[in-house]
Amino acid sequence: MPLSEHSIGIFDSGLGGLTVLKAVRKMLPSENLVYFGDTAHVPYGSKSAQTVTSYSLEIAGFLCEKKIKLLIVACNTASALALETLHRKVPVPVIGVIEPGAKRAVAASAGGRIGVIGTEGTVRSGAYKKSIKAINGDARVMELACPLFVPLVEEGWWRHRVTRLVASEYLDTFRPEYIDTLILGCTHYPVIKDVIASIIGPRVNLIDSAEAVAAEAKELLAAQNTQKKTGRGKMHIYASDDPARFKRLAANILGSKLDEVELKRFC
Amino acid sequence: MPLSEHSIGIFDSGLGGLTVLKAVRKMLPSENLVYFGDTAHVPYGSKSAQTVTSYSLEIAGFLCEKKIKLLIVACNTASALALETLHRKVPVPVIGVIEPGAKRAVAASAGGRIGVIGTEGTVRSGAYKKSIKAINGDARVMELACPLFVPLVEEGWWRHRVTRLVASEYLDTFRPEYIDTLILGCTHYPVIKDVIASIIGPRVNLIDSAEAVAAEAKELLAAQNTQKKTGRGKMHIYASDDPARFKRLAANILGSKLDEVELKRFC
Repeated sequence: MPLSEHSIGIFDSGLGGLTVLKAVRKMLPSENLVYFGDTAHVPYGSKSAQTVTSYSLEIAGFLCEKKIKLLIVACNTASALALETLHRKVPVPVIGVIEPGAKRAVAASAGGRIGVIGTEGTVRSGAYKKSIKAINGDARVMELACPLFVPLVEEGWWRHRVTRLVASEYLDTFRPEYIDTLILGCTHYPVIKDVIASIIGPRVNLIDSAEAVAAEAKELLAAQNTQKKTGRGKMHIYASDDPARFKRLAANILGSKLDEVELKRFC
Repeated sequence: MPLSEHSIGIFDSGLGGLTVLKAVRKMLPSENLVYFGDTAHVPYGSKSAQTVTSYSLEIAGFLCEKKIKLLIVACNTASALALETLHRKVPVPVIGVIEPGAKRAVAASAGGRIGVIGTEGTVRSGAYKKSIKAINGDARVMELACPLFVPLVEEGWWRHRVTRLVASEYLDTFRPEYIDTLILGCTHYPVIKDVIASIIGPRVNLIDSAEAVAAEAKELLAAQNTQKKTGRGKMHIYASDDPARFKRLAANILGSKLDEVELKRFC
């Protein structure tokens, strides 16, 4: 099988990474995609670096068996905590979501005052701050953990008044006079982007790394000359627990039904 | 070592089971206790029976190595989904939280109209309904999943207006004219009992299984003549991820500082 026919592997702790899958499918419609949602271990956001790294390596190993040419870590927590180890141990190129998001934020920010919201693990790692500072040493970065956003997305309360209230509690920290750009530093957050936008106001740029990651994947495949350019790409989706529940919720995020979600357990 | 010196093993997916630990320690202050919080896999509530059973068996095996004389499943989801398997495979007596809670609810309910709130897994299992109906076939049981309560407890928003709003959204289903008794069918929920009570009103009895379970443990040890009656019991606490975080949050629930939380990883 020529390398171009190999798939792009994408994984997340659960549903959030589907926002990345959607962007990749739109930008690279001919590519075959294999997605893994680690629903047996979701969420990653409150777990330690060692635990998140061990889950990520297990998934990467499984996806490599499926013949992938590129691995996208579609989870900010895993990108923040496990990317270096994945780079070292995975035999295909690996892209995380943090660097593409940071680049895009720096490009969008006029005043260099950038806010980042994410899980506890992502924020504690300081990965966004490091990545932004590496591009623009003068940028001011303010990071904030928003642990309730993931459960609210998983509950399906995407436009609910509770979500609005939680968002206003959290985002009060970033009044428009303090930041000009806000990174949605968790792949679940684009699902509640409208609520976040209505609280944070129109003067703040919202950065969602899904598109940035898809663009980076496209560039990388072009540089390596491993793109698949014709035909409609296939999509395989695996979940480590309760594929029926995953399928139901995934359809809401993707805006289209899924054919099948296969169960793949570890241990 | 005489059997009376063996410990009581207690486990939960995370912090919630500490409400049970607290009740057991109060009722049986001389007993040695070993607690396991499965923070690498928390929460259990949205996971499948097979996955929750496999996590529970692994923990039970670990606790048995620590010389226990009794195992308390201080997690409603695991009690609902894994108790039968644990009864079959664990070589010491096993107590879950559902039957004691159901008994207490039936005793407290004048009109036999009982509400149950819990995780998706607990509610989907119908374990409370089955258990209540076995005691009082005429009881009317209404079950409702409240998936956001666990993350709200874990976030520490125990008296927060968001928690109040979420509770009023969920509990609207149980207006006082419909139920006379409400089971807090998740060991996390007693932590936000005040909020739940203020929404559901004074005419509804709130049933928290922690005390009922402690009483059942006391009876069982007395019947087997394996109580430890003198001295102050020791307490060992393990978590499968991030023991420092666990220690900090546990102190809030127990109302006293913990000496040490040890890390025990599986796989």
